[in-house]
Amino acid sequence: MTPEEFRTAAHALVDWIADHRERIPQLPVAARVAPGEVAAGLAEHAPEAPEPLEDVLKDLEQVVVPGITQVQSPHFYGWFPSNASLASVLGDMASSGLGALGITWQSAPAATEVEEVVVEWMRELTGLPAGWRGAIQDTASTGALVAMLAARERSSGYSGASGGLQAQDAPLVVYASPHAHSSIAKAVALAGFGAGNLRLVDVDPITYAMRSDALAAAMDADRAAGLRPAAVVVSVGTTGTTAIDPLAEIVPIAQRFGAWVHVDAAMAGSALLLPEMRHLVDGIDGADSLGWNPHKWMGTILDCSLLYVRDPEHLVRVMSTNPSYLRSAVDGEVTQYKDWGIPLGRRFRALKLWFHLRLDGVEAVRARLRRDLANARWLAEQVEAEPGWRVLAPVSLQTVCLRHEPEGLGGEDLDAHTLAWAAAVNDSGRAFVTPSVLDGRWMVRVSVGAEPTEREDVAALWQLLRETAVLAPSSTGA
Amino acid sequence: MTPEEFRTAAHALVDWIADHRERIPQLPVAARVAPGEVAAGLAEHAPEAPEPLEDVLKDLEQVVVPGITQVQSPHFYGWFPSNASLASVLGDMASSGLGALGITWQSAPAATEVEEVVVEWMRELTGLPAGWRGAIQDTASTGALVAMLAARERSSGYSGASGGLQAQDAPLVVYASPHAHSSIAKAVALAGFGAGNLRLVDVDPITYAMRSDALAAAMDADRAAGLRPAAVVVSVGTTGTTAIDPLAEIVPIAQRFGAWVHVDAAMAGSALLLPEMRHLVDGIDGADSLGWNPHKWMGTILDCSLLYVRDPEHLVRVMSTNPSYLRSAVDGEVTQYKDWGIPLGRRFRALKLWFHLRLDGVEAVRARLRRDLANARWLAEQVEAEPGWRVLAPVSLQTVCLRHEPEGLGGEDLDAHTLAWAAAVNDSGRAFVTPSVLDGRWMVRVSVGAEPTEREDVAALWQLLRETAVLAPSSTGA
Repeated sequence: MTPEEFRTAAHALVDWIADHRERIPQLPVAARVAPGEVAAGLAEHAPEAPEPLEDVLKDLEQVVVPGITQVQSPHFYGWFPSNASLASVLGDMASSGLGALGITWQSAPAATEVEEVVVEWMRELTGLPAGWRGAIQDTASTGALVAMLAARERSSGYSGASGGLQAQDAPLVVYASPHAHSSIAKAVALAGFGAGNLRLVDVDPITYAMRSDALAAAMDADRAAGLRPAAVVVSVGTTGTTAIDPLAEIVPIAQRFGAWVHVDAAMAGSALLLPEMRHLVDGIDGADSLGWNPHKWMGTILDCSLLYVRDPEHLVRVMSTNPSYLRSAVDGEVTQYKDWGIPLGRRFRALKLWFHLRLDGVEAVRARLRRDLANARWLAEQVEAEPGWRVLAPVSLQTVCLRHEPEGLGGEDLDAHTLAWAAAVNDSGRAFVTPSVLDGRWMVRVSVGAEPTEREDVAALWQLLRETAVLAPSSTGA
Repeated sequence: MTPEEFRTAAHALVDWIADHRERIPQLPVAARVAPGEVAAGLAEHAPEAPEPLEDVLKDLEQVVVPGITQVQSPHFYGWFPSNASLASVLGDMASSGLGALGITWQSAPAATEVEEVVVEWMRELTGLPAGWRGAIQDTASTGALVAMLAARERSSGYSGASGGLQAQDAPLVVYASPHAHSSIAKAVALAGFGAGNLRLVDVDPITYAMRSDALAAAMDADRAAGLRPAAVVVSVGTTGTTAIDPLAEIVPIAQRFGAWVHVDAAMAGSALLLPEMRHLVDGIDGADSLGWNPHKWMGTILDCSLLYVRDPEHLVRVMSTNPSYLRSAVDGEVTQYKDWGIPLGRRFRALKLWFHLRLDGVEAVRARLRRDLANARWLAEQVEAEPGWRVLAPVSLQTVCLRHEPEGLGGEDLDAHTLAWAAAVNDSGRAFVTPSVLDGRWMVRVSVGAEPTEREDVAALWQLLRETAVLAPSSTGA
């Protein structure tokens, strides 16, 4: 395809995208396709000859769009916000259009240096300690794995460079909340610690935050048993309830054991853009790493996850390679982001943050986040005030965990009721919420914060929740 | 930014991209900025208020573009081709525009099923065994790490689910060519085997391919010493010389030890689109995994790496997580790509392959690859025929390893000469080649295969190589 053919096709695609974004509020939020339905709409084999763009756009419209849960909808309250702001989409387009290759500084100095600059902008905007440096990872899952690898290597005297984790005498142990994101257990398993060496520390029954006394006891017990505490993962905003583990209490405990402290603020990181929310990471000066996702609430399109570390030299020592075909005369003077994560080749992802911040401006982002915090508080107040409804966990950010509890309904009957009305909400197409388990019972998470969601949308959701809950069966036999 | 504001801005950006792509052949290939120069051209802090698009585009033009090595140039012969075909750029744009969230099947059924379909298209197009299934990873580095984790878990009885690698009695060992890509050693270290448990197996002095007899001897010796051979990485197209390790000979040896066979065909995978090149992976039926990068020679824009496995159930068992907030009623019926790799959240990357294949058509891609193979053979013939020049390794694909060897020049003087004329080529802005070390001496890799590179471009390069080599100092003192 020549640049001129691209020009024509891309203009048509841009119009399609703008039209699509305009109609998203009217689309059903949850995808309504059955398993296999999208695949059945696609050709069985790749085409030998070129097809016209119109055919591809037709399939995009008729086959792909119905197969997408519209997380950009004002009516999306599922999982966590996954905003793809159009300013950041422009940055993504610029990245694709440039077609740069990010393997070393030399292959695209601008890809390295724009990343350095915007990652420093973001450090400053979120109030992280001066001197901490970071890199863009695809997701917080990968960031957590990188942090666990850095922790493993520090605790094992750089075993990766010698006999590996298999040469350890005293097994290394990692600590986290049972409410930590699933990616933490995955990172611990993949990094080779083994699931059996992940300790899930007790949480407070009201706040669902890690109990620092329980952490200290668990670390003491492990050390007494000849094990080596290697890392503590501090969840600042758990996925279930956005519980905030007490970082300031945890840091001095971890330091007694020389354990790495990784702060998983995947969701809550956006809140750090608000100076009044920085208390969430009190104690950060003593931590070792923090990961968060601008691609969630802040709205820099996926994939854009930031991983900051206090000691970049250690990270680079763990992750670096230096074959002759990648060497250059400037190696000592520049940042080589290949040594800050797993992949060698990297897209020019910094552009989406750069475009997002410059075209929207930081103040507008902050105003939106404050709007969402207020909307979540407002919803929680309505729920608390309504008989038969309950807010189940502190609303520390913009997510409200709630349940409709008709009188006399409990146990599995209550679970069936919850799942039934949550399904009714999602099947309506008018909103999307996520059922989740808390204390062994199903509840519903309403995660406010889609970019276009205003107070009137949240009010409409609250109306919908009540309507569907009243109609839902109130026992498994109903 | 509203959809209408996006429409206006995106049309302007598309014109900028098309204009940029048109002028790439005239730009210097290697970026000419000094370390820190790009960063110095950017604002020190993020802007509080929105800036106009024009200002961002101006910076893109004046600060970013000069800081990019133009791998899309017809005069790019460095590293490996890293084509970003404009058809695939459109797919990337569609992905960004949709703003889908790929965490589970439910979050975007189409993202899962389009990926299943195009990955199967690609399996068929490359002649990989029926029944093998794959997923798109960001890069072959990550794919290699995933393969090493799968190998580790198979050889250790799923240690990740219990005591981890640190509970192993008999250390696990991995085997690879000393010419394997740097990502292999990195994957072995990160997966916890430890660099000390990576055996670099002898290669043939002419072909630089792994010697299967040396592999068998190394595996025998390790087993006799109480170690456990866990995996063999077979490089099909090494980075230095595109050497082809003999897969068909290696497979039965590895099978004797129950060792995982991972085929790293990052570069050569594109060649498998040509039926006449499938001999490169003779023996693949007995391997366990193969990774390759459509984002290299084939030209589906970065990041687009395919990882195929023979036993998907094993891979899913190693990589899966299943928290309540991600469960749905259809879990048993659908593919959950979060369990095929490291990240939970995934971009809709299948669209770029889908757009690329449909808008360009497979036959055009094959024709381009055949053109490049012929151009590389032609260049090798010119070099061989020219007194004082030498081709240093078999040209098994599209990369020619060559050196100008003036009479009487050897040792470090020859190295200095090679580095001097390679630098002169790159400094000219008229071409970009990669110096690399082979058998302890610097040589130059000419990797043909940028999408716009025609025979006349290769002929111009050959002229440039000769001109610069003649002018370069032929001793360190000259």
